[in-house]
Amino acid sequence: MPGPGEFELIREYFSARFQASTGASGDQGVVLGIGDDCALLTPPAGKILATSVDTLVAGVHFPADARPDFIASRALRVNLSDLAAMNAEPLWFTLALTLRQSDPEWLEPFARGLAETAKQYGITLVGGDTTKGPLSITIQVTGACEKPLRRDGARAGDTIFVSNQLGASAAGLPLILRERDGSIKQKEQAYLAYHFPQPQFAVARAIGPYASSALDISDGLLGDLGHICAASKLGAELNLNDLPVAELAYSMNADTALETALTGGDDYQLCFTVPEKHLDIVQNLQLPITAIGTMHREPGIQCTLNGKSWQPRSTSYRHF
Amino acid sequence: MPGPGEFELIREYFSARFQASTGASGDQGVVLGIGDDCALLTPPAGKILATSVDTLVAGVHFPADARPDFIASRALRVNLSDLAAMNAEPLWFTLALTLRQSDPEWLEPFARGLAETAKQYGITLVGGDTTKGPLSITIQVTGACEKPLRRDGARAGDTIFVSNQLGASAAGLPLILRERDGSIKQKEQAYLAYHFPQPQFAVARAIGPYASSALDISDGLLGDLGHICAASKLGAELNLNDLPVAELAYSMNADTALETALTGGDDYQLCFTVPEKHLDIVQNLQLPITAIGTMHREPGIQCTLNGKSWQPRSTSYRHF
Repeated sequence: MPGPGEFELIREYFSARFQASTGASGDQGVVLGIGDDCALLTPPAGKILATSVDTLVAGVHFPADARPDFIASRALRVNLSDLAAMNAEPLWFTLALTLRQSDPEWLEPFARGLAETAKQYGITLVGGDTTKGPLSITIQVTGACEKPLRRDGARAGDTIFVSNQLGASAAGLPLILRERDGSIKQKEQAYLAYHFPQPQFAVARAIGPYASSALDISDGLLGDLGHICAASKLGAELNLNDLPVAELAYSMNADTALETALTGGDDYQLCFTVPEKHLDIVQNLQLPITAIGTMHREPGIQCTLNGKSWQPRSTSYRHF
Repeated sequence: MPGPGEFELIREYFSARFQASTGASGDQGVVLGIGDDCALLTPPAGKILATSVDTLVAGVHFPADARPDFIASRALRVNLSDLAAMNAEPLWFTLALTLRQSDPEWLEPFARGLAETAKQYGITLVGGDTTKGPLSITIQVTGACEKPLRRDGARAGDTIFVSNQLGASAAGLPLILRERDGSIKQKEQAYLAYHFPQPQFAVARAIGPYASSALDISDGLLGDLGHICAASKLGAELNLNDLPVAELAYSMNADTALETALTGGDDYQLCFTVPEKHLDIVQNLQLPITAIGTMHREPGIQCTLNGKSWQPRSTSYRHF
């Protein structure tokens, strides 16, 4: 027996669950939510809209057998991270969900995880599409900002920062995929890092007035810092002794921890640059951030460890 | 040998091609296009944004071996049809493209078809994502409107109209899929209807001030008119002798032509309702539209053919 048809699917699992947040009250400027040809939205006056889209494919970007509520939560968090990286406040998102079959036992926890995460970050589901096919999730998020943090604003001499620690998600992936066993503590760290990435809105808000450029580290620090370098037409110098490497990366494999923190993917931490004149202010903001290097005029990224030049074996996660 | 990596892919096939339309000139309010964490957009002052997302999966929504430029053009047109149905003018779109491999011989014509169609309808590509997986295309379009045409505005007594003819796309599908042979004329009609659906912006603009509700017919007239009925809490009465059935539907199978026009998918024509007081104006607008029935208070859709009640065998295309 076939599951519910497309329209019942959308209505049952999404419209109803998200109705409270898309009512007539004009929540976040939502004039009309799910259910018509288009959602109707009133953008906040005088602000710039920031929008980003990401697709997560089962078996490529997440394990197909992961918990549906974890899959939903992670998919939305990964997209929210792009808003945080621009210093934009979340407004609306859409969900394009492709499924092999419409299975209530999968959809119910998926919708619940999505709704809980949306509520946590104050973003409203305004539209979507469900189609039959191999499992994949495309989410587009839209937010509003006054002074966006772009990639192309870094200047030579700016200090490079990252938020929190790097490498936990990539280091813990063998535990997530059950390719390797580990301690309860390691598994906890791996699950938190991989399934519950934390969009860095608080850090972005705090550094917003002072940073010259920013992005979120999704494909590994070296590759992503390379995007700031390319967009700003600069190079960078990193002191690896200062790099905040996640405890899990060391406990999984101390020999490769540094490399994992530099080139592993799925960190969703911020990398940003701060001009000399704002350095004292930023360093006194009491944020979980670490200065790791400096932007300079020579192209390329030079890494130094214990006073010596250091070369990684690879630079960035390769999607294809 | 692997094809180009994700970032080269985006840059080569999309950024470069669409650069002219996402420059610093502020084209359509684009502050920053493809290439950062988010696109940055300035919404037009005082207008409502309309946004819609649709996924097209190869083998489900289009033949996987169709010409890449046709696939791209159709994917964008199908989404633009949702903007037309709300009487919104196109502004921006994003593309989330999932591909088995990054093949320049497929990507080049795909990007060309997308760019040509975008130019034709005045919509700007502002962001995207490319991922590895089974071929599917998710496009989200955003437009601006002053007085949106919703589904829930119909009143009892309103006259129901459709634009142009219905049934050509569904009737011609066996020719598109090469399940059946036909004449050159039939193939031409099938290709035009299936691969080049025409978003009905001109009709929507003209009827915008007068219509009480509207949507685009993507899943067959009966099913989609059912959405207007449900949203407006009404029923409808159709006189099938007035239905504008496409010539191709008759030439493919005269016996099923009426049914195909009522329940076949992929028409992308408008269905809209007009109150009595605006009927004369709308009928004198010289538009390719036909009055086919009346909204009434009793729930359900009653069809009459040659003065007798008529029942279709099915009501709407079922996605699952």
